[in-house]
Amino acid sequence: MTTPTPVGPSTPTSTATGPTPTKADRFSFGLWTIGWTARDPFGDATRAPLDPIEAVHKLNELGAYGITFHDDDLVPFGSESASRDKIIGQFKDALAETGVIVPMVTTNLFTHPVFKDGGFTSNNRDIRRYALRKVLRNIDLAADLGAKTFVLWGGREGSEYDSAKDVQAALERYREGMNLLCEYILDKSYDLRFAIEPKPNEPRGDILLPTLGHAIAFADSLEHPELVGINPEVGHEQMAGLNYASGIAQALYHDKLFHIDLNGQRGIKYDQDLVFGHGDLMNAFSLVDLLENGGPNGGPSYTGPRHFDYKPSRTEDYDGVWDSARANMRMYLLLKERAAAFRSDPEVIEALQYARVPELSVPTLNPGETYADLLADPSTFEDFDPDAAGEQGYGFVRLNQLAIEHLMGARG
Amino acid sequence: MTTPTPVGPSTPTSTATGPTPTKADRFSFGLWTIGWTARDPFGDATRAPLDPIEAVHKLNELGAYGITFHDDDLVPFGSESASRDKIIGQFKDALAETGVIVPMVTTNLFTHPVFKDGGFTSNNRDIRRYALRKVLRNIDLAADLGAKTFVLWGGREGSEYDSAKDVQAALERYREGMNLLCEYILDKSYDLRFAIEPKPNEPRGDILLPTLGHAIAFADSLEHPELVGINPEVGHEQMAGLNYASGIAQALYHDKLFHIDLNGQRGIKYDQDLVFGHGDLMNAFSLVDLLENGGPNGGPSYTGPRHFDYKPSRTEDYDGVWDSARANMRMYLLLKERAAAFRSDPEVIEALQYARVPELSVPTLNPGETYADLLADPSTFEDFDPDAAGEQGYGFVRLNQLAIEHLMGARG
Amino acid sequence: MTTPTPVGPSTPTSTATGPTPTKADRFSFGLWTIGWTARDPFGDATRAPLDPIEAVHKLNELGAYGITFHDDDLVPFGSESASRDKIIGQFKDALAETGVIVPMVTTNLFTHPVFKDGGFTSNNRDIRRYALRKVLRNIDLAADLGAKTFVLWGGREGSEYDSAKDVQAALERYREGMNLLCEYILDKSYDLRFAIEPKPNEPRGDILLPTLGHAIAFADSLEHPELVGINPEVGHEQMAGLNYASGIAQALYHDKLFHIDLNGQRGIKYDQDLVFGHGDLMNAFSLVDLLENGGPNGGPSYTGPRHFDYKPSRTEDYDGVWDSARANMRMYLLLKERAAAFRSDPEVIEALQYARVPELSVPTLNPGETYADLLADPSTFEDFDPDAAGEQGYGFVRLNQLAIEHLMGARG
Amino acid sequence: MTTPTPVGPSTPTSTATGPTPTKADRFSFGLWTIGWTARDPFGDATRAPLDPIEAVHKLNELGAYGITFHDDDLVPFGSESASRDKIIGQFKDALAETGVIVPMVTTNLFTHPVFKDGGFTSNNRDIRRYALRKVLRNIDLAADLGAKTFVLWGGREGSEYDSAKDVQAALERYREGMNLLCEYILDKSYDLRFAIEPKPNEPRGDILLPTLGHAIAFADSLEHPELVGINPEVGHEQMAGLNYASGIAQALYHDKLFHIDLNGQRGIKYDQDLVFGHGDLMNAFSLVDLLENGGPNGGPSYTGPRHFDYKPSRTEDYDGVWDSARANMRMYLLLKERAAAFRSDPEVIEALQYARVPELSVPTLNPGETYADLLADPSTFEDFDPDAAGEQGYGFVRLNQLAIEHLMGARG
Repeated sequence: MTTPTPVGPSTPTSTATGPTPTKADRFSFGLWTIGWTARDPFGDATRAPLDPIEAVHKLNELGAYGITFHDDDLVPFGSESASRDKIIGQFKDALAETGVIVPMVTTNLFTHPVFKDGGFTSNNRDIRRYALRKVLRNIDLAADLGAKTFVLWGGREGSEYDSAKDVQAALERYREGMNLLCEYILDKSYDLRFAIEPKPNEPRGDILLPTLGHAIAFADSLEHPELVGINPEVGHEQMAGLNYASGIAQALYHDKLFHIDLNGQRGIKYDQDLVFGHGDLMNAFSLVDLLENGGPNGGPSYTGPRHFDYKPSRTEDYDGVWDSARANMRMYLLLKERAAAFRSDPEVIEALQYARVPELSVPTLNPGETYADLLADPSTFEDFDPDAAGEQGYGFVRLNQLAIEHLMGARG
Repeated sequence: MTTPTPVGPSTPTSTATGPTPTKADRFSFGLWTIGWTARDPFGDATRAPLDPIEAVHKLNELGAYGITFHDDDLVPFGSESASRDKIIGQFKDALAETGVIVPMVTTNLFTHPVFKDGGFTSNNRDIRRYALRKVLRNIDLAADLGAKTFVLWGGREGSEYDSAKDVQAALERYREGMNLLCEYILDKSYDLRFAIEPKPNEPRGDILLPTLGHAIAFADSLEHPELVGINPEVGHEQMAGLNYASGIAQALYHDKLFHIDLNGQRGIKYDQDLVFGHGDLMNAFSLVDLLENGGPNGGPSYTGPRHFDYKPSRTEDYDGVWDSARANMRMYLLLKERAAAFRSDPEVIEALQYARVPELSVPTLNPGETYADLLADPSTFEDFDPDAAGEQGYGFVRLNQLAIEHLMGARG
Repeated sequence: MTTPTPVGPSTPTSTATGPTPTKADRFSFGLWTIGWTARDPFGDATRAPLDPIEAVHKLNELGAYGITFHDDDLVPFGSESASRDKIIGQFKDALAETGVIVPMVTTNLFTHPVFKDGGFTSNNRDIRRYALRKVLRNIDLAADLGAKTFVLWGGREGSEYDSAKDVQAALERYREGMNLLCEYILDKSYDLRFAIEPKPNEPRGDILLPTLGHAIAFADSLEHPELVGINPEVGHEQMAGLNYASGIAQALYHDKLFHIDLNGQRGIKYDQDLVFGHGDLMNAFSLVDLLENGGPNGGPSYTGPRHFDYKPSRTEDYDGVWDSARANMRMYLLLKERAAAFRSDPEVIEALQYARVPELSVPTLNPGETYADLLADPSTFEDFDPDAAGEQGYGFVRLNQLAIEHLMGARG
Repeated sequence: MTTPTPVGPSTPTSTATGPTPTKADRFSFGLWTIGWTARDPFGDATRAPLDPIEAVHKLNELGAYGITFHDDDLVPFGSESASRDKIIGQFKDALAETGVIVPMVTTNLFTHPVFKDGGFTSNNRDIRRYALRKVLRNIDLAADLGAKTFVLWGGREGSEYDSAKDVQAALERYREGMNLLCEYILDKSYDLRFAIEPKPNEPRGDILLPTLGHAIAFADSLEHPELVGINPEVGHEQMAGLNYASGIAQALYHDKLFHIDLNGQRGIKYDQDLVFGHGDLMNAFSLVDLLENGGPNGGPSYTGPRHFDYKPSRTEDYDGVWDSARANMRMYLLLKERAAAFRSDPEVIEALQYARVPELSVPTLNPGETYADLLADPSTFEDFDPDAAGEQGYGFVRLNQLAIEHLMGARG
């Protein structure tokens, strides 16, 4: 019996028409993403390690403008100084050669057993001190490489058991750490800001600052709130069943969107880290529409890196890895095209008007109106007919259908 | 200050190009869907009741071929016989006039307080007997109207508290009821089959037969398993975080897909009953691809009604209701077009081959091969190199990207 | 055949030993909780309306100290002034007679169709103005009744469809409304503070300020953040899969726990509003432990009302309603006893010490230590042995087992 | 500044009173559970490997009667025959020495990269053949060791992308594999049955046979359904938000509970594998009550091994591992005590009666009654008063409160 022979090496989707990424698109990738060797909780690695130098060149080739990393992605944990310097030197050479930049750097406080109960909030004080040292060292490197954002994902800052962690004390220690880091970059005059990356759970049962809301609230409580924002990841918010695009809108509203992690997630489950758009496609459309067209005059509401924090599926070899890297950027650009068409379609404009979406930008009070004026205006209560007002339809379903049809390229 | 005036009445998406529904598409709607008056757990009705006769005419106009109902949707609970007969007569007239058919009928065992602990599995035996009577009466009507499927959604068959319901006893009572119904339709020679509609929770804390898997397992245990299949609803399976298209494939595999409820749901939360495709769009694409192209020779794998069980959002007036009805059918037809393009694209065919998707249809054993032959074949173990076999990539991400690009109409 | 006869009327769990509630426990109930007539999305009311006067007397009898309400719970929507005054007068008489107080009042901006797209953030500006008027009117009543907290649950402030709501504009309108309310109570010298009640979804697909984190971040952005805190509900946070006790700890950390809504929820699904402790029992234990023993010196960390916002199951008659009211208070008191025993058990104290839980309250830096000092201390990095530190076990599982055994009353 | 010194080595909860496990309790553990080295998706191993011989002795000491394993847990993947024989021989010696038995064996088709797209349902046919060989080899070992159950967890049988897996073809291949295995054990006269372990997701995006319902439906479709049952795991069902105790009741109803995996999970998230009872405590109580008291005469409904499939938290050293092993057994025994007290409490018996729980075991039809008799009985419909019947309360909340109070040891 003959088994069908799979045809030769995977070919990129070369016949595809449509947009190609350029550095102006500001796409960046974590070294740990394309370099993930695909070890998961139930399986061993399926891919060999990726050389960081090759990563820089390959990303450059594909049209990305930036690469990011955790200290231990680039320099193996516990490396000697000389070896560290050499690795960093070669990495800088590759950057210089390609023009690829490092817009963001982050620190790994989660892989080594020492961090099994966290870094800044480990119950073990010696480990907290060590964690601060590890981060401080890495901040110097971030500044040296010209990064503008330093991300902190506190994936181990949490607990499986409620009595094992005094959450108020933990937040106080987190605060102590963040305040120290802010003081450090101010004293050093580093052009850096911090971005906390929230996540509800995994690898800990419950993680501190589980959503972007909790993280913003925490950032507001610090000594230098202007230096601390957030880096929300699509999948992390969706792991709590939250609407990512709405969350980003709130982050923008509070001026806290310092960086963004794009990927895909299919509902409330383990952290999938799929390609951007390969999860909730409709919300990805809304997100790109918000980032590109949600600013005050209809322009971009966010101008920082479009950073992909995803994992090429464990079933893929390196051909598949690069296909997946391409797919992230292509999804973004396709969605950007679709969002532009949506915003400029006269029927959409009419439907938005009908749905009174622009009316929400009109202040509820008249210019100069006080609560006393409002109370004195009988049209707002005494003469108001709630039954009649409640009968009017908003046309939201039709509007949503128009959005989906644009997403599907079904409107010319 | 001038508030922007919303433009006039909502206009259907008239400038849209693309497919229009016809009766050949076999689209049907529940009377309770377009007729939902939008009362929800926290709010009063926002729409006036819809006349069933108007519903038939309007659906006919929009291109649907069928209408379905719960007994109490058509004839108010507790109506006198004469009034019941009159209502049914007028309904039949409207059907005759329009050619709209009734492919399915179902019974309401959940709205009235008497069913607060269930119908067939209420702890109260008198209520169980009453529930059987209510259903038997409605089966006669279903047969009279030519329905081929009788759906049972046991939304109140369940419990909030584990000790309040003896689940094994409940299943035994459910079985007793189903066996009786089967006997009845056999004796009456009704051309009807039953379809159980699973749901994990809401309005009960936990509902019996929470997923399509549980329902198939239960159906298999009955005296006439050939008469009892399932009617899985998109949102109900997704409320358990399950992949709906995969579930439907299993239902088809067991020959149990007797009817289908199409709608939309955005993740694990309350039952949203959005328009089909307005939830997980990618899975809706996979579903339509499965229904239309997943049969043995690439043709349809399901030929029954495409039934929409959704709720027009509470924000809509009747213009919005009809827009939403249109949107359901349009989504299905658009997805059908996209799926056809996906299946015929040579690059997709190549990518499926590369991913070895067709290879899964080749039996694992050679024709006539026994386990002894397999054990004697050293190529399968002794000489097999798992490391080499583990290195091959499957190209799944690229394949998925191709699927999404077809969904987005991005491939010419 | 004889059906077993259920024995007579439900008797309260009278033989139970253990704590009984008194007014010193500060238990309060929403009028809409015990008065819920049990209409749900799929079913009609199963209970007759409850007279508010009877509610006051009954709660007093059961040991509660407070009753709370939405304007429309007490005075039907659209009542004439005279009728309103009469109802309020009788209600005050009942309060005076019983000594029951009104610690909190709230406004219903969700039941009437006029609010189908929200109150403060409705796309319709006239409705926003009406909503402000409705709330202002109710604030006067709250102040008149001596309430100290005014809760705002924005259950309709949200959307099903991303393009139907400009989230940034919505937050700006929310802010406008909250600022106006704060100004009003300041001018009136009302001794009132506002508490926003977050919820992720239901009845809207996504609700603004979906978690307590988002709500605190928003409150921080207002003109009078000191007047605006939160009222987090057990089930609402758990509907997003979040750890409620951890969330409350963060709210306490930010001084934002102005009020609390206790109830039960069994996982991520529709809003269940079960009796407190009838959901995630372990987390309820942790919560009571936090509220009662999590303060700076081991005393209470929260001294406000213990408010129950739950729904007596739809299967219950009024006997069951009062049983369920009793059950809420009994659960709290039992958990308080268990938590006290847990905290005073020497083996627990030893296990907490072993797990280094108290060590987290020790600042990471020495008194007066700067980052420069830390960098100069080789014991923190250069001489630190992460492998050795990573080997130490924390004993968290044992600690959790001790907590559960105390919860189960299994440790003498 | 002095950091508080944690007191010495963790001491087991020695002062605890209460039940101690014996072999009569039939507790068993997977070798991979206590032997988990605590490598997770974001972290390296925190514990050294555990010697299987030591595991046998230690479990014996703690009171377990059985140990189970995947082939690769005991014999490293790819071991030479001689080395394999030696390891197995030593393992048998330890069993003989201690009296510990091997009630169940299972095969690892998920760790090695070769299985990255599954075993029995890999798209790659050569891998499917290899997987069958690996399992057949292991079945011989299972039979040799006297195991009565062979578990198959198809953790890699699934997909991340809908188009990457033809689910109907996959089920057909699964079926082909299972039929071959059944034929094999029948021919060999092995006293073994198969138990499929369902899981909704992780490590694959969606796994085939995601719940126990789906697995029973599939088992029913095989050539020898009597040989194939299920092995449901607490956490796996709860990852789909399903009620585990209810699911087990359905499995018992269909005679498919061939084996059981006990552990703990806190809601819908990644697979936590906590200690049994450390997740949803109330449902654990209901489960033990069902297993111990849910049989036809109030006795056990399941008499097989009480198997723990959990992971000692990554924060623990080996003291913590053994504490966690003890905790599993202690939780079971404590819950068993509590369930016995619950069942024998006269007030509970009265409350069950009031709630009509036993009435559900009374057939709905009278002995010999036909549907015709039912239709002829006017008391069931014509004279039935649904309004009156709908007013009766069930007392479910009170019953649940009694259950919780027993769980909490709060009723004497």
